Amino acid sequence: MTDATDATAAPVVARRSQKVTSGSGRPRSERARTAVLDAVTALLDEVGYQHLTVEAVAVRAGVGRTTVYRWWPTKAALIIEALATTLPRVTVGITDDGRRDLRAVLDRMARAECGPSMAETLPALAAEARREPDTAARLTGLLGPRRAADTAVLLAAAARGDIPLHVDVSLLLDIALGTLLWRRLRGEEPTAAALDALTDLLVGSA
Amino acid sequence: MTDATDATAAPVVARRSQKVTSGSGRPRSERARTAVLDAVTALLDEVGYQHLTVEAVAVRAGVGRTTVYRWWPTKAALIIEALATTLPRVTVGITDDGRRDLRAVLDRMARAECGPSMAETLPALAAEARREPDTAARLTGLLGPRRAADTAVLLAAAARGDIPLHVDVSLLLDIALGTLLWRRLRGEEPTAAALDALTDLLVGSA
Repeated sequence: MTDATDATAAPVVARRSQKVTSGSGRPRSERARTAVLDAVTALLDEVGYQHLTVEAVAVRAGVGRTTVYRWWPTKAALIIEALATTLPRVTVGITDDGRRDLRAVLDRMARAECGPSMAETLPALAAEARREPDTAARLTGLLGPRRAADTAVLLAAAARGDIPLHVDVSLLLDIALGTLLWRRLRGEEPTAAALDALTDLLVGSA
Repeated sequence: MTDATDATAAPVVARRSQKVTSGSGRPRSERARTAVLDAVTALLDEVGYQHLTVEAVAVRAGVGRTTVYRWWPTKAALIIEALATTLPRVTVGITDDGRRDLRAVLDRMARAECGPSMAETLPALAAEARREPDTAARLTGLLGPRRAADTAVLLAAAARGDIPLHVDVSLLLDIALGTLLWRRLRGEEPTAAALDALTDLLVGSA
């Protein structure tokens, strides 16, 4: 079951790296795409979601704004694809210790979905998704497989009794993501001690 | 202790209502301020934080953009003052039932800090606060007294043993706010059942 979700989670990355290694250099449009996505990643880090503009992305990538809009209809679509290429992969890690598996999920969330620039980006994308069906579909494509993998880990832990059997797995995952996002937004680093405390609370031993 | 934090939480409201009732109508600048703040509230609801512009606020309020910037240096400052006038008040409600008091805190959060347009607004303001010291100070002025009141409620519950004595109250409050914000962002209404489940988990009975 390990890595089962990776193929759906990052299809674009896979296709791109094949092209890179399969011929005598990437086609020009492929180079431009990579430059644009790299520019998005850099700007999210430097100025944040609110202050990132498609104009600034185009300038930094050395392409025209029309080129960007030809491939991505909106700022949100552009950012979601950039995230698909940079977010750490999700694996379904099921060992014989459900608490440790949950702790590993929190650890990855803290680095990936709730990483420094993500705490601003993810809520902004979710808000945009509620206004724009196209953005909603793209965001589900990005987060859905990750959520499925995490759900599998928690269901396995519940089946073994490492977390209460009747627990609402969906609530636990919302608590984990919501808490880590909000703390990061308030400038709090997710220390090991903080992740341990959150794990304790989620497994009901608080 | 009841209502002890209200005076600091919404000083602007208090001052404004005194003016309204104390003389023969509000001065012109006061009417303009109210019109601007009303326009902010309406636009947050209609277009959301990301798409709200100071320009649109000025147009809707019937004032010049310069007027808006004379009173509020940034979009964030403007929005924070609008929230100070519209967010439901916070009271310190301590009864003989700590679980019920915590449930009441969650109930208010679901309506106030995590209300429909707030799920986008609050994370965006928090992100801006990390870039802008002035915004950080204003946001602390808005949220600090609310947090203090909620902390008092949870400390009282812990002192009575209704929630575990050794619990990290700050973590519980971050979980409550973070989870409710994230669920609202994903379009989930905070139903009574969902608030009950979250309360159970926070009091350690999950």
